[in-house]
Amino acid sequence: MIAYPQMTAEQRKREYTRQQEAFEALKAQKLSLNMARGKPGKQQLDMVSDVIFNLMKEPKDFLSGSIDVRNYGEMSGLPSAKRLFAELLGCKPEQVFVGGNASLQLMYDTISKAYTHGLVHSERPWCREERVKWLCPAPGYDRHFKITESFGFELITIPMTSEGPDMDAVEAAVKDPAVKGIWCVPKYSNPDGVIYSDETVRRMAALRPAAPDFTVMWDNAYCVHEFEGAYVDFPDILAECAAAGNPDMVFEFASTSKITLPGAGIACFATSEENLAYLSELLTIQIISFDKVNQQRHVLYLKDKANTLELMKKHAAIMGPKFRAVLDTLDREIAPLEIASWERPRGGYFVSLNAMPGTAHRTWELCREAGVTLTGAGATFPYGKDPRDSNLRIAPSLPPVEELEKAIDVLCVCLKMAALEKLGV
Amino acid sequence: MIAYPQMTAEQRKREYTRQQEAFEALKAQKLSLNMARGKPGKQQLDMVSDVIFNLMKEPKDFLSGSIDVRNYGEMSGLPSAKRLFAELLGCKPEQVFVGGNASLQLMYDTISKAYTHGLVHSERPWCREERVKWLCPAPGYDRHFKITESFGFELITIPMTSEGPDMDAVEAAVKDPAVKGIWCVPKYSNPDGVIYSDETVRRMAALRPAAPDFTVMWDNAYCVHEFEGAYVDFPDILAECAAAGNPDMVFEFASTSKITLPGAGIACFATSEENLAYLSELLTIQIISFDKVNQQRHVLYLKDKANTLELMKKHAAIMGPKFRAVLDTLDREIAPLEIASWERPRGGYFVSLNAMPGTAHRTWELCREAGVTLTGAGATFPYGKDPRDSNLRIAPSLPPVEELEKAIDVLCVCLKMAALEKLGV
Repeated sequence: MIAYPQMTAEQRKREYTRQQEAFEALKAQKLSLNMARGKPGKQQLDMVSDVIFNLMKEPKDFLSGSIDVRNYGEMSGLPSAKRLFAELLGCKPEQVFVGGNASLQLMYDTISKAYTHGLVHSERPWCREERVKWLCPAPGYDRHFKITESFGFELITIPMTSEGPDMDAVEAAVKDPAVKGIWCVPKYSNPDGVIYSDETVRRMAALRPAAPDFTVMWDNAYCVHEFEGAYVDFPDILAECAAAGNPDMVFEFASTSKITLPGAGIACFATSEENLAYLSELLTIQIISFDKVNQQRHVLYLKDKANTLELMKKHAAIMGPKFRAVLDTLDREIAPLEIASWERPRGGYFVSLNAMPGTAHRTWELCREAGVTLTGAGATFPYGKDPRDSNLRIAPSLPPVEELEKAIDVLCVCLKMAALEKLGV
Repeated sequence: MIAYPQMTAEQRKREYTRQQEAFEALKAQKLSLNMARGKPGKQQLDMVSDVIFNLMKEPKDFLSGSIDVRNYGEMSGLPSAKRLFAELLGCKPEQVFVGGNASLQLMYDTISKAYTHGLVHSERPWCREERVKWLCPAPGYDRHFKITESFGFELITIPMTSEGPDMDAVEAAVKDPAVKGIWCVPKYSNPDGVIYSDETVRRMAALRPAAPDFTVMWDNAYCVHEFEGAYVDFPDILAECAAAGNPDMVFEFASTSKITLPGAGIACFATSEENLAYLSELLTIQIISFDKVNQQRHVLYLKDKANTLELMKKHAAIMGPKFRAVLDTLDREIAPLEIASWERPRGGYFVSLNAMPGTAHRTWELCREAGVTLTGAGATFPYGKDPRDSNLRIAPSLPPVEELEKAIDVLCVCLKMAALEKLGV
């Protein structure tokens, strides 16, 4: 196979005709395949729900110590659920707030409270600031960016490296007192699948921001989510920040959405005890207590970190083949053509693909035409605008392997067509 | 028995000594009884949890139509859960948003979104208004008042009557464009247990507020919560507002906290389709989806309105005797003394007691000394300040009847002592 950039115009034309034929043949199959979102597949859901909903039968199952989990109370979560998350994250139970089924909502709420009431070290609520700027390592998670965009913050792109956000850029940016925070997915970053290096974590914890209430939003969404190889230990950002003299600078988030069930998991944030006390006071206004029966159910099901890691191996047995199907096909079909590059993640839910600059939108469009839905091109950048129009996020978890293979075939053909169009045919 | 106000100073002194002795005897029992919050008792929780957690066993139980309730999706709630709430409230399913376990959180969120982003008819977000005023019918629900207080709104007390809020006062107040809304608990109001009259509902729906985004927060917390007598039908506020030309003026709230379980129920708001679309767009930023497994569980358990009303009769069989214990004791012990008055509710979770003006705090303090916790005196008024220091909210649901009887004995003695102190002993 000749790499596309090395082809003559004539060769490209012939190749384009070939790919067009393949494309039409795929279109004729009237596929409807979705690789847009990090949704677990049915096999994973069945594995969990067969067990988790059969654990609470006797009256004693509704007691957590002396707490009746069915009644009001324990706004900040069951102590046993705090212990579970603390063990998973490597922090202390008294730093953990467990509430609701969605860590995204806890993130939104943290930003929203900063906006309406301010955080512990705020001089005023952020709605009273003339402007608020926010650092967005990109490619990153579209839903993160949307939260800060929806509050009118100015989003500043920070380049991602293979060790996490470009810390030189971050350290320079936080000298501006209008810069109030940064989004981070430290382990198996969404979408690149990068694990932040120890050096990145250390520098992040040791930032000296001009804003006294600068906040690191540490979304540890994939803290135990290896699908390839052994569990990778990861530093406790709360301890790192405290050691660096920034105890109140970070909020860490996690959930069981991709450990148990996305539609019925539990979520938490972890932060300094001072932050927790401050936020709890505001949250008391908002809710009497979250669903503690589901917290109890999760404690009974997951038990502890060791048992949770065993469960994650079973998820890996389902997820691994899906990721390998994507990566092996890309290696075989696309690598020799020199029209795209991608990471080889060992955990998380995504493959981040960098298509030939200027072809991501066109590839997405062609995929849609052939019945394959990808995350919108550009979505991984602030304001949904990828300046190079290159990054595409592939989410292989939902379709069964046989459907996935078809979807990747479509993607490969579309990548080729878009690249050839760009090169000139 | 001579009414206290008619007693001579000498008689009062003797009576006070008698009550002091009774008080000391009760104190010696070292009681620890709680009538502070509207928490269902264990008998109610057992009745529900014996059944509700044993309904989802087979794979098909996790399907709602074609929706797998275990996965992400359906941000505004399961269609079946919307239908259930719509039937309970008498509105349309397409007007219902089902999310989370707590209606209080949905109320908070509505106010918070108005503050940060504005509502459909807002000229600007409320955080950009110079001042926001809010109408608080009082006595009312302390958690309502706290929400609006926490956003810095100026709380304006509206007197409660036996037909609901004093509508002359409401109609006058809404002429001020800074007045942005009102709290309402229309059926078995918290704490008075009053059902708003048809006339009150009609006038509320037909308000002509100066603020284009004036909002009625209609907390229908006790929509099916009769503990005495038959179910009382109640007008659909959404239809009333639409008919009066105010389709977007109201948000209605409800939950199953006191139908199924406070620690694991489901909650909703209902509003015009335009409001719903607007709020959904904002909520999409905040959450991918709420816990739909619990929604499905509730649909399977409650089924429909007729079945829910049957369940509420079983709750009534537990709640009725508790309320009668409170009311009968007050009738017997306090009524002849002419030192307090109270409502005789037929539903809801509270008895609203008006002690002799100037004695509510003292009564509360004495109760605490004798081991009985009541809702803080003043809590039922804006800023926690009852101008007459008279109203006390009694929540008889949690303690078993035998404990409750003891708690009421304590309350009666404390009411007597406080009144005698006030009259002079």
